[in-house]
Amino acid sequence: LITLLSDFGYKDPFVGVMKGVIARLHPAAAVVDLTHGIPPQDVLAGALVLRHSAAYFPRGTIHVAVVDPGVGGARRPLLIESAGDYFIGPDNGILSLAVEARETPRIIHLSNAAYHLQPRSATFHGRDVFAPVAAHLSRGVAPAAFGETVEQFVRLRVPESIQSERELLGEIVYIDGFGNLFTNILEQDLRAWDRDKLSITIGGVTIGRTETHYGAAASGACVALINSWGLLEIALNQESAERRLGAKIGDKVRVFAA
Amino acid sequence: LITLLSDFGYKDPFVGVMKGVIARLHPAAAVVDLTHGIPPQDVLAGALVLRHSAAYFPRGTIHVAVVDPGVGGARRPLLIESAGDYFIGPDNGILSLAVEARETPRIIHLSNAAYHLQPRSATFHGRDVFAPVAAHLSRGVAPAAFGETVEQFVRLRVPESIQSERELLGEIVYIDGFGNLFTNILEQDLRAWDRDKLSITIGGVTIGRTETHYGAAASGACVALINSWGLLEIALNQESAERRLGAKIGDKVRVFAA
Amino acid sequence: LITLLSDFGYKDPFVGVMKGVIARLHPAAAVVDLTHGIPPQDVLAGALVLRHSAAYFPRGTIHVAVVDPGVGGARRPLLIESAGDYFIGPDNGILSLAVEARETPRIIHLSNAAYHLQPRSATFHGRDVFAPVAAHLSRGVAPAAFGETVEQFVRLRVPESIQSERELLGEIVYIDGFGNLFTNILEQDLRAWDRDKLSITIGGVTIGRTETHYGAAASGACVALINSWGLLEIALNQESAERRLGAKIGDKVRVFAA
Repeated sequence: LITLLSDFGYKDPFVGVMKGVIARLHPAAAVVDLTHGIPPQDVLAGALVLRHSAAYFPRGTIHVAVVDPGVGGARRPLLIESAGDYFIGPDNGILSLAVEARETPRIIHLSNAAYHLQPRSATFHGRDVFAPVAAHLSRGVAPAAFGETVEQFVRLRVPESIQSERELLGEIVYIDGFGNLFTNILEQDLRAWDRDKLSITIGGVTIGRTETHYGAAASGACVALINSWGLLEIALNQESAERRLGAKIGDKVRVFAA
Repeated sequence: LITLLSDFGYKDPFVGVMKGVIARLHPAAAVVDLTHGIPPQDVLAGALVLRHSAAYFPRGTIHVAVVDPGVGGARRPLLIESAGDYFIGPDNGILSLAVEARETPRIIHLSNAAYHLQPRSATFHGRDVFAPVAAHLSRGVAPAAFGETVEQFVRLRVPESIQSERELLGEIVYIDGFGNLFTNILEQDLRAWDRDKLSITIGGVTIGRTETHYGAAASGACVALINSWGLLEIALNQESAERRLGAKIGDKVRVFAA
Repeated sequence: LITLLSDFGYKDPFVGVMKGVIARLHPAAAVVDLTHGIPPQDVLAGALVLRHSAAYFPRGTIHVAVVDPGVGGARRPLLIESAGDYFIGPDNGILSLAVEARETPRIIHLSNAAYHLQPRSATFHGRDVFAPVAAHLSRGVAPAAFGETVEQFVRLRVPESIQSERELLGEIVYIDGFGNLFTNILEQDLRAWDRDKLSITIGGVTIGRTETHYGAAASGACVALINSWGLLEIALNQESAERRLGAKIGDKVRVFAA
């Protein structure tokens, strides 16, 4: 199984062409789109999406992630093997959050051009490098064949929440298509607190507790809950919190134990 | 074969993750996206899309439909078996229009948590309930294993057109991506009338007849025709009727026999 | 392998339903979406996308392309066999650029209704004509069974650049989802020139050379490069050139040898 994640959007044939390249090299490979709606050049969004998605796929899945503003330049193309899964993409941090929590990864620099399309463009390594390497890997080519092992790769830093005895200071790190606001506050950060007696503030809005689900909130009222990524989320029942609150990535969220 | 329909859009990995869950449980399952562009929380749009799509799939197809504003609350997750096909989703009416015209359905409440992911989130039952149930069903698990049989489920009411001897009063029930306006007036409603001598009004516009296809209209002129769902549709040749007429769901459409 | 290209967008179930039709007729067929984001009714954009994509798929692939403003009218549905690949779509030029550079094509008018869905709508031949023909063809039905061989088909003309000794006058023919501007100037048009000493003008902007990749440009500066379609492209590093320059299809691009 091969998954594809990118910021290519849905207007162009770029994703379709990557699937053509894979089909030529390995007709039996199964390909699943993780998403191609990552905001253009937003490596952090892509890395977060990959981190919260990879565990739901079968062991041995090959994840190809292409958010690649540095394509054609000095950044290296990588294959990372970690806990039995494979991650392919540029060395700009896009793969790092998915790999982070796992055992020591094995990192291969995809330097062997014999596994790339020729001629290789300088603007579309998804087609010319990452798709063919994924196809060959899925056919059983050994990781070492694709290039030399390296020790380092670029790691992204997700802003961490700041915790004191009675206060958590976090921020919005992802906004989904419904306009729900994902913070960097984890479920476990709230474990010791009484979740019915909180004061959660974002912009000028204060929420007094966490709910278990969207529908528990009054219509039109903000709701805070632990979402499917295990993160504290600020949302509006059947409405976009992003639009209503004018919220954006990086906005601060404060949680006080009341 | 499993189909997926949702209002998840194309920004996030939610659909991709559902496919990962299915692949883990049943690697050989084939999955087709019906669409994920249902407007957020628009259960009626999702139900109409499912009604007009399901018949084109092979008998025995498993249709998963997730437009689910009540996720995590009291609404039940259901599996409905009807005329040899399977429909999985929340009990909010999303499945009801597809099932309506068929033989008495068999309805299962998906209460057996052994077939759900654990831990189960309260915000993403597509991943934690509906996808795994679909995967197990496609592997041959008997419907009765997923929970108890129930008698009732939520049925949506599509507004019906009002018919008198020389007049039909309908309304717009769906607008497609081209901006074509789908009414609730059926081809058979017009059967007794001379379709070359009509007066079809919407907003301030009057159309004098139905055409067989878009190109039969003068460029920039409104056209009325029977569309691929068997419904009276108001459109503009190579233009968006939605945008030009400022039309929206619920707008009235009147047809007089001239 | 069957590919699908259209201007259907991602709101509606039209593409999903085509896959249902294919699955009913040939359950083992593999289907890949090339893209469904072609701008509505933009036959030239669809034809360019198909031309620059088809070569990346395995020999024998069946490409179905449905940008079809004339659906239901006099335009013929076609199957074109060329260099071992198959192209299915309306006779409005959508197939012509992909076929152009190849050996003499064999053209079949899809007149045999036995291979169409019945009843056949006048507004959705993707579902009722093109998908079923593709499915039957993928099952091994001979091309001649679908209708009579014809000699002519509609060919699109892409505007060609005008070349003099020291000047090339081209124009923008495609804009991708990143806002990158694809011109009709080919890599080979520039072969004799010193690419470090050029004067490339678009709107009020002048670029002095071509770069090999996006990152070679200063942030916020326009860059010219040869892109993955082999075309001269005007772009902005990590930004949309379309938005910043207010550019659109047909805008002129001049290249002088400095």
